[in-house]
Amino acid sequence: VAVRHPERRREPALPAELLTTDPGAVVTDPTVDLVVEVMGGLDPARGLIVRALKAGKPVVTANKELLAARGAELFEVAGAAGVDLLFEAAVGGGIPLIRPLRESLAGEDVRRITGIVNGTTNFVLTRMTEDGTSYEEAMAEARRRGYAEADPTADVEGWDAAAKAAILASVAFGAPIRGADVHREGITALGAVDIAAARRLGFVIKLLAVVEAAGGGVAVRVHPAMVPADHPLASVRDSFNAVFVEGPAVGELMFLGRGAGGSPTASAVLGDLLDAAHNLRAGGPGRTVQLHDVPLRPIDELVSACYLSLEVADRPGVLHAVTGVLGRHQVSIRSMEQDPEPGEAGARLLFVTHPAAERDLQACLRDLSELDVVRRVGNLIRVVG
Amino acid sequence: VAVRHPERRREPALPAELLTTDPGAVVTDPTVDLVVEVMGGLDPARGLIVRALKAGKPVVTANKELLAARGAELFEVAGAAGVDLLFEAAVGGGIPLIRPLRESLAGEDVRRITGIVNGTTNFVLTRMTEDGTSYEEAMAEARRRGYAEADPTADVEGWDAAAKAAILASVAFGAPIRGADVHREGITALGAVDIAAARRLGFVIKLLAVVEAAGGGVAVRVHPAMVPADHPLASVRDSFNAVFVEGPAVGELMFLGRGAGGSPTASAVLGDLLDAAHNLRAGGPGRTVQLHDVPLRPIDELVSACYLSLEVADRPGVLHAVTGVLGRHQVSIRSMEQDPEPGEAGARLLFVTHPAAERDLQACLRDLSELDVVRRVGNLIRVVG
Repeated sequence: VAVRHPERRREPALPAELLTTDPGAVVTDPTVDLVVEVMGGLDPARGLIVRALKAGKPVVTANKELLAARGAELFEVAGAAGVDLLFEAAVGGGIPLIRPLRESLAGEDVRRITGIVNGTTNFVLTRMTEDGTSYEEAMAEARRRGYAEADPTADVEGWDAAAKAAILASVAFGAPIRGADVHREGITALGAVDIAAARRLGFVIKLLAVVEAAGGGVAVRVHPAMVPADHPLASVRDSFNAVFVEGPAVGELMFLGRGAGGSPTASAVLGDLLDAAHNLRAGGPGRTVQLHDVPLRPIDELVSACYLSLEVADRPGVLHAVTGVLGRHQVSIRSMEQDPEPGEAGARLLFVTHPAAERDLQACLRDLSELDVVRRVGNLIRVVG
Repeated sequence: VAVRHPERRREPALPAELLTTDPGAVVTDPTVDLVVEVMGGLDPARGLIVRALKAGKPVVTANKELLAARGAELFEVAGAAGVDLLFEAAVGGGIPLIRPLRESLAGEDVRRITGIVNGTTNFVLTRMTEDGTSYEEAMAEARRRGYAEADPTADVEGWDAAAKAAILASVAFGAPIRGADVHREGITALGAVDIAAARRLGFVIKLLAVVEAAGGGVAVRVHPAMVPADHPLASVRDSFNAVFVEGPAVGELMFLGRGAGGSPTASAVLGDLLDAAHNLRAGGPGRTVQLHDVPLRPIDELVSACYLSLEVADRPGVLHAVTGVLGRHQVSIRSMEQDPEPGEAGARLLFVTHPAAERDLQACLRDLSELDVVRRVGNLIRVVG
């Protein structure tokens, strides 16, 4: 057992002779059959895992950062060595998710995975939705409760969710996607206006990781989304995580649970450990992820219905000017209403569009911002589900 | 491939020489490595599965009726033969549930499983809740949509859910429980009054299968329950199934999906088939359920908060008489309100109790029915979650 501080009191206590500060000694020890990596970070974790796998030792890891950055290499080493590389704890904490995707759904042609995979942001959005608090107030409460780190950037900017989306793309689609490749929008720009508008329009705002089959490849993205209030993901509250899976035979599935925390993570690691031990005793080929040449489709190709808020001058002809811009870019309006709580500068218009191409929507936003009747172009939030 | 009607057209078509009407010929055929049983029923399925297992052939089955009645025998035969007996499709259709419980949560000391495991009754209750229809109208719609069989007794009386509860008790607690041993109450007595009262009190009525650690054994029961509206199970709508799992490390988990239908069942069977094939090639010991001497605790020992409705005479002193009976049986009241829509015979009182012992509640019901101010004792519905 390699630890940083062997002198620290542990519960339950470990015999001193089992402790070392040298993780290399653990992976090369011939009496060690199986390695559990919960140190985190890219290095030295990567090198240690590679050495263990090459020595024929199954590895259980919770290291989402490493898998999202160097998964392809690790899966290849595990496959070549014929030993298990298991990582249930890396996505969704204690939620059994990786094993069901790899084994239970092995016969399913999964089409889309839509996940709430970051508990901090889900807590913040839940508080904003249910208590009407601002982003700042909700984040302060998340900190008080220990759900947010001192620097929450990785959570609120979607980096954490992007890493998990990349891992899900590897597991469910065999796509060699890295976290850094994932299109990513965070929640810091969301305001009480959007939250209230969502409620009025029958939606709940969630930060989603979406992985879906698209154009002969896979599309992977993380962004806030308007989720219909009666969709199973809409009722996933507080720091819970949930992953919604769609396939032609199985229909719709959802896995919900605590996505982080020491105990849920430990539960997932222990399940993997028992599985790896069983497989090791059975002596068969290990299970790992097989990656293929599955291309990542660019966000430009996305076609999605959207919510859009605009602060406009409160005078005749505004709607005509705005709808002119939308029409010119082939953005068709499903519903429009004037916010009963207007903005400071005039009126606020809330649009929900029919599915529209991302590039048209972005061009539309640029042109809208140049209209002199438009005071401010608010958030564009995609409708999912 | 043993079928009843070899002449029937199939899609995709199978070569005629692969078809037989003799299932015994399939399980004894030395070229058959692995057997899938989806014929259903107790016999001859039981004998065929036993013969296959004893011949060293892994078996994948979707037969919940058989597992609930004769699971102990089948698990023992599979264990002795050292081959896989997999049955993901038997509970929750396409929802990966059995494998996560057996493998992912192998290290978890599961304390309670609470499931909506019958799609027909969940559809009926959802329609009653959302449309305000009667039980009869909702059941008629379930029939029209193909969610209910001509004779829905097994669904509405809770037999189907009881079989699944027994299987979950085996898998998660190693308890040798049969479906017939499970305490069981159906939904036929539920009325629009209860549904409306539930909504007013902040609950949703669901038919639940509950399996929980209790008194050194396991308690297993199926009954309608008041589920708090913000509980994840409350938002499981229509014919969806969901299973909520609680454990000390993992916290709370929920698995949701389509619990029945040909395609979801096929997806689960195919996942099991691939898993069994992988294990067979690995050549290790098979996985089966290990049963232990875990006693089934009687329903008498249950302690639960309850909802109770009473139709009473509309005159002074009624509440005094009723609360006297409740107090005499140690049933403490958490809330009481008069239904704003009174019954035909006077007033309707709605109680929610604090947790009370089942035997006290039953004694209480008997005494209440003998009070001359009580016109009718309505449904007693346990609060769960």
